[in-house]
Amino acid sequence: MTGTAEVLARADRDLPLSLARLKELLRIPSVGTDPGFHAECRRAAEWLRQDLEAVGFKARLRETTGQPVVLATHASPGLPSHAPHILFYGHYDVQPADPAGLWESPPFEPHIRTGRDGKDAIYARGACDDKGQLMTFLEASRAWLSVHRRLPFRLTILLEGDEEGDSGHLDRFVAANKAELKADVALICDTELWNDRSPAITVVLRGCICEEVTITGPRIDLHSGYYGGAAINPATALARILGILHRPDGRVAIPGFYEGVKPVPPAVRKQWAKLGFEADRFLGGVGLSHSAGEKGFGMLEQIWARPTAEINGIWGGYTGAGTKTVLPAKASAKLSFRLVNGQDPRKVRNAFRKFVKQRLPRDCRASFESQGGDNAAIAVAQDSRWIAAARRALKDEWGEDAVLIGSGGSIPVVESFRKHLKIDSVLAGFARDSDNVHSPNEKYDVRSFHKGHPLVDQGDRGIERMS
Amino acid sequence: MTGTAEVLARADRDLPLSLARLKELLRIPSVGTDPGFHAECRRAAEWLRQDLEAVGFKARLRETTGQPVVLATHASPGLPSHAPHILFYGHYDVQPADPAGLWESPPFEPHIRTGRDGKDAIYARGACDDKGQLMTFLEASRAWLSVHRRLPFRLTILLEGDEEGDSGHLDRFVAANKAELKADVALICDTELWNDRSPAITVVLRGCICEEVTITGPRIDLHSGYYGGAAINPATALARILGILHRPDGRVAIPGFYEGVKPVPPAVRKQWAKLGFEADRFLGGVGLSHSAGEKGFGMLEQIWARPTAEINGIWGGYTGAGTKTVLPAKASAKLSFRLVNGQDPRKVRNAFRKFVKQRLPRDCRASFESQGGDNAAIAVAQDSRWIAAARRALKDEWGEDAVLIGSGGSIPVVESFRKHLKIDSVLAGFARDSDNVHSPNEKYDVRSFHKGHPLVDQGDRGIERMS
Repeated sequence: MTGTAEVLARADRDLPLSLARLKELLRIPSVGTDPGFHAECRRAAEWLRQDLEAVGFKARLRETTGQPVVLATHASPGLPSHAPHILFYGHYDVQPADPAGLWESPPFEPHIRTGRDGKDAIYARGACDDKGQLMTFLEASRAWLSVHRRLPFRLTILLEGDEEGDSGHLDRFVAANKAELKADVALICDTELWNDRSPAITVVLRGCICEEVTITGPRIDLHSGYYGGAAINPATALARILGILHRPDGRVAIPGFYEGVKPVPPAVRKQWAKLGFEADRFLGGVGLSHSAGEKGFGMLEQIWARPTAEINGIWGGYTGAGTKTVLPAKASAKLSFRLVNGQDPRKVRNAFRKFVKQRLPRDCRASFESQGGDNAAIAVAQDSRWIAAARRALKDEWGEDAVLIGSGGSIPVVESFRKHLKIDSVLAGFARDSDNVHSPNEKYDVRSFHKGHPLVDQGDRGIERMS
Repeated sequence: MTGTAEVLARADRDLPLSLARLKELLRIPSVGTDPGFHAECRRAAEWLRQDLEAVGFKARLRETTGQPVVLATHASPGLPSHAPHILFYGHYDVQPADPAGLWESPPFEPHIRTGRDGKDAIYARGACDDKGQLMTFLEASRAWLSVHRRLPFRLTILLEGDEEGDSGHLDRFVAANKAELKADVALICDTELWNDRSPAITVVLRGCICEEVTITGPRIDLHSGYYGGAAINPATALARILGILHRPDGRVAIPGFYEGVKPVPPAVRKQWAKLGFEADRFLGGVGLSHSAGEKGFGMLEQIWARPTAEINGIWGGYTGAGTKTVLPAKASAKLSFRLVNGQDPRKVRNAFRKFVKQRLPRDCRASFESQGGDNAAIAVAQDSRWIAAARRALKDEWGEDAVLIGSGGSIPVVESFRKHLKIDSVLAGFARDSDNVHSPNEKYDVRSFHKGHPLVDQGDRGIERMS
């Protein structure tokens, strides 16, 4: 198939329109983890369904136990029977936008401006994670189809709304719709570039489980004068337990936490050492200068290959203006545990609960709420023909070898695809580590949006070479 | 002076009106510590000014550096020059009402009902602390004046609006208005009965200082996948420090914290032992069964004579519905320290700050906000003629000896009166320990409100006997 130049010219010409469409999608505050925004999630899904129909897909909303998924297929006539079938995955749900006060432009009013690094970017919650990245692929498909009327491969598009929350919803959907979703490989655009110049394919992903714990003591908040010195303080009890969650050397202190964790093979360690990762720059970008992690491990190893226990939120008692001198009746914390290959999510969850319960002072009770699914870590086969094709394709466009990297983040759908569809995933994305993913002032470089366009084309050329 | 029976009859007859007035005052949400309610504080002050004028006082609002005070005097003609001059003190500000969801009736819609203990009580924020108690005295004055047209002593009434917050405001007002406020003794109605049958005079009060601490790390909230395992987590840093604020034996671990603290004299210890304090009942009332305080001290000693460090509130990171897997950029806590005789508030505050700073991990900063004034502990002279008079008066009304007690709470105005006016305070109040002061469902027994009425009369008889 020829006509790549025409497709790229079309993408260039239509960039203003592509950006306008992305802005429309970004204006919908589809925070999947907050029930107050579930109507907006459905609105985002419906917006995508209509846009996919406009491009020429057959697209439907499909109900799940969580937010609806958008499922779309393109019936390209005349494809040979051996043409590959690709399952493209993205998510339209976004992280909550708080703290709202720290945004330089409102999180759901997308704004294109030149950042401090001199690069034009679109600023909004979800700009990068993952609306911008999924629209990168959709716009590429649109440009291709407007020139060629048909795609060079079979394509199923699956866009979900629970990626930032409970991955169990999509997992159940995939398990229940295996035949419909069956493909040769999944393509996921929700990861990062290695740096400004080099694209990357993510082959190692940490898993994640989330827990909320509440420690309850007295049946009401108590006057700190009348009861202080005699009554248990649940906020203190919580601080004591969370304060010893790590040992002084940074190791997580929960017994059994490291069960199944294997050391990084020396060859991989050597490969990572060659990547030229700049720990100082990485931390410096967020105002830090010292590793606070496990002693004895390099920083890439700390974030790609070592499990963690982190407090994501903590609250209890009076937190308003001024003072209220109470002993709070209860105190809570949200925690996330990043897991690596070999760890069993259920075992880690239970080990944490046991850790808390065994350290509770008298008169205190602990309750736990599991949030999100049990997402094990992922290691993608690095020697597959799909990875090889993606490396060639990315090199053609970016002029630099794609780096095979790990990621500390979790994309549990990779495990769902492997488990239920028996397929691997190619994780190639265009986020930069300065994109403030999950933070205020999230952004997505206009260049990433634009330079990601040829992925359909490159993917096709990769596939042509491969087949 | 005679006519006590007439006054009491008038108080009895007017009880429904008295309750209606109290309800009016309780409907004003005068939360002094929250700037959002400062207009309501002024409204409460103005309501009191008008009510005092109606009773026959000359009353004005006077500005302070905080909420306005209500200052009222009664010019009773024909008083002998040696007639005592009494300064009555109360406060119209109330604690915040949250958590609002735990109130059985709305906190600012006063409701009279029979509680689980079979006693009629008025339920509202401030019912007991201190609107109900200050109105007890105002209604007594009203009944007396409606019968006799004049009081048997000189009376100045001072009602403030910063008792639950920064006591520095009233302290400055007292210092600046010494001549106007000069009296022979202060009468403060903001304390507790010993039990249902026995009144009490509080002669030992713990002091209190409040601190807010914020620990800041990275300049933004961080993705727990990308940064977790490498970056410092300020919520963890805060938990670690607050988790070691106490030693395993319950003693506060801040170096220098106990400087100046003297053991309770054996005679006082013996006196307290005879009070028949039921620790099980005290804790059981709030759903607890074990002392969590310093080992080696009785519970009365723990709450009256030992200093404390308590977390009043803690917050940081994501605390909304669902999950947000961040490492928070900062985490905060509010703490109160109850102080005993001999401790220097400023030294304790500095010792706490030093304790935090010395334990900060690298890349973290701590900022502190002093909230409320530096309130030292108080010990009132127990052998004064005023205490003796109050004991006789209370016994006449209640039929039981008033118990001389301590209180774990703080009434810093006692120190202001002593320091600036050189007068002692008689602390006689009518709260019960089941009144949920500072908690949801605060209440004030109708019987306390009613039985407290004769204090003016009894005070007078006490004074007659005394002079």
